[in-house]
Amino acid sequence: MAISPLAPAAFPDLPVIDGVTFAAASAGVKYKGRADVMLALLAPGSAIAGVFTRSATRSAPVLDCQAKLGGDPSGPAAVLVNSGNSNAFTGKNGIDAVAALTSAVAEVTGIDAKRVFTASTGVIGEPLPFERITAKLSDLYDAQSATSITDAARAIMTTDTFPKGATATVDISGKSVKIAGIAKGSGMIAPDMATMLVYIFTDALIAQDDLQALVSEWNNKTFNCITVDSDTSTSDTLIMVATGASGVDVTGNAAFSEALHQVMLDLAHQVVRDGEGASKFVTVGVTGAANDDDARKVALSIANSPLVKTAIAGEDANWGRVVMAVGKSGAAADRDTLSIRFGDITVAENGWRAPDYSEEAAAAYMKNDELVIGVDMGIGDGASTVWTCDLTHGYISINADYRS
Amino acid sequence: MAISPLAPAAFPDLPVIDGVTFAAASAGVKYKGRADVMLALLAPGSAIAGVFTRSATRSAPVLDCQAKLGGDPSGPAAVLVNSGNSNAFTGKNGIDAVAALTSAVAEVTGIDAKRVFTASTGVIGEPLPFERITAKLSDLYDAQSATSITDAARAIMTTDTFPKGATATVDISGKSVKIAGIAKGSGMIAPDMATMLVYIFTDALIAQDDLQALVSEWNNKTFNCITVDSDTSTSDTLIMVATGASGVDVTGNAAFSEALHQVMLDLAHQVVRDGEGASKFVTVGVTGAANDDDARKVALSIANSPLVKTAIAGEDANWGRVVMAVGKSGAAADRDTLSIRFGDITVAENGWRAPDYSEEAAAAYMKNDELVIGVDMGIGDGASTVWTCDLTHGYISINADYRS
Repeated sequence: MAISPLAPAAFPDLPVIDGVTFAAASAGVKYKGRADVMLALLAPGSAIAGVFTRSATRSAPVLDCQAKLGGDPSGPAAVLVNSGNSNAFTGKNGIDAVAALTSAVAEVTGIDAKRVFTASTGVIGEPLPFERITAKLSDLYDAQSATSITDAARAIMTTDTFPKGATATVDISGKSVKIAGIAKGSGMIAPDMATMLVYIFTDALIAQDDLQALVSEWNNKTFNCITVDSDTSTSDTLIMVATGASGVDVTGNAAFSEALHQVMLDLAHQVVRDGEGASKFVTVGVTGAANDDDARKVALSIANSPLVKTAIAGEDANWGRVVMAVGKSGAAADRDTLSIRFGDITVAENGWRAPDYSEEAAAAYMKNDELVIGVDMGIGDGASTVWTCDLTHGYISINADYRS
Repeated sequence: MAISPLAPAAFPDLPVIDGVTFAAASAGVKYKGRADVMLALLAPGSAIAGVFTRSATRSAPVLDCQAKLGGDPSGPAAVLVNSGNSNAFTGKNGIDAVAALTSAVAEVTGIDAKRVFTASTGVIGEPLPFERITAKLSDLYDAQSATSITDAARAIMTTDTFPKGATATVDISGKSVKIAGIAKGSGMIAPDMATMLVYIFTDALIAQDDLQALVSEWNNKTFNCITVDSDTSTSDTLIMVATGASGVDVTGNAAFSEALHQVMLDLAHQVVRDGEGASKFVTVGVTGAANDDDARKVALSIANSPLVKTAIAGEDANWGRVVMAVGKSGAAADRDTLSIRFGDITVAENGWRAPDYSEEAAAAYMKNDELVIGVDMGIGDGASTVWTCDLTHGYISINADYRS
């Protein structure tokens, strides 16, 4: 699988987060010849927050994490993730597999199973061969290292073509607070919510509830605003860990909040950049809607429209399909106040093609790898931005024979 | 463009409907070397009903038809349709174009412009070169023939690979009542509603209001239950004409109603069979949902899922993606009561893979051209059936360079 043309130039240099160690191993859950399981160990007292898919058919590990969230943070904790099998729609067998994994981690590490958070990503509906994972736990425990986060980022990949990482450092009262995050995600990406796996670590000091509030808030502006194919995963999970090792209390600190926002946005964008078959990174910005909800409806209608996405793949400035997507969105719309921009080019306004519209200029713009589609509804103050990619032959090739 | 592998063996032998004549011509609106405009003339007293796209950005001809519907049926009427340009999102120019077309038809035929119903289908946002159409009206008038409905069916095609027709004859009180319909549609097909052009003619006698009620009712069970790509047209129009020429009053007649249902269903299925790039015709039947609305949400979520549709294209019995689509639908769902069938094969039940599931049997089933995906939610009595096709490289090829 060729690396996405939209991939960042390199994996970022992620800082060590005091209080977190990592290891990855090849358990052979499904993939051969690559790491497919990662174990992270978290220092006692780490605050843990999370957001999860809202799918009605969410997986056993998601339900287990949701039940554990908000528990007593005084002891150490662990995160165990495998790729290749999502342990979703696996009935009682799936619940048993999660129990087997968490108790095995507890046994090997001495960490209370109630503080062991698992995730599984990959094919749905196949029994998880959890014994292959438990067989590797001692190795994973022995190999723990503060610098192995990149190995962890690789181990959680499925159809991803590149590992995803992002980092920020904030100076607060003369001390440095670090954030490092990793993510996987490529297909089955849509709100709600993260529709992928994301693990973010910081050495900041913050209470679990405050961390949860922060993560939930930014999730709505980042991972809940991306879509590759409108399909929502049964497994997706964002876990945020604050070890407190820096000793810097970030409660209510705006700089830390914004740094976290940027890390989450960066990871969310990287998921879109690795969208299955993607050749264009597309920002859809909607303004002037009756309200924010309507703006979001319009933005997602455009971003999920197969006809808009295929036009982008073909570098066709087919703004008529954007009009179509506005029209079907269900949001309040008035053709005669609608305007549409491709980058800085106004292609349509006042219910028709812009008077100085140039097909050549629009066609030239569409050749860019990164595109901005701007829609102003001309009705109110509602605004929303979502990010997506185009729909190409690559998406069909990847998904017409992923499981077979 | 190769004819869809799912096309019917032949265009049906459509009967003459007394009171209706047709002609088609090549006006060169966009396409070269083929007919792209059709004019139908309807006898005085014809009842006319219609259903239309609910897009907020619907086209000028749709708005014009909606305004005219329900008008005095005593005089003659006409239907004028062009392909190649949808006259949608064309501002005041679009309204003027409709006025120019309808007054030109009135001038040539002597029919009141209030009884001239137009439709345009094709690219959005380009000015309609209506003079090319008006220039052909005298020819179209002179060429009127009761047997030219097939030419009309061909003239309204855009990316369609075959013309679409359906017919039924009902014997009522020893007399025969005929129904003949034509349709176009291939991409940008989704509820609401018809998302295509459909013209159905009958010699039955029925009041305009009763005809409208019948058409609206069956529309919800036919054209509103098909989806190719979840994209909703700005132009789509279904016009039903009852000339009354048979003298047989069908008001409240169940056999006529059911015959009309079958003609509408047949045409709707043909649109799916000509879905852009389609290689499989898929029936998605949902039962046991909390209510019919929930069942429809689940059915459409499955039918519109790119991951489900690509799996079908790849002949992959990937029922996990069906689980995903159920989960994201927003309908009430209980994993542990959910069962999924591919044809007669139960692939999942009680929240997991069926105990006697055979990958080989499921894979063999997926090789069929016509597939049935059955989902029972195990919650209530809600049911819904929708029809769709798979998502293939052909769809990408057609849509990544349709306009350019």
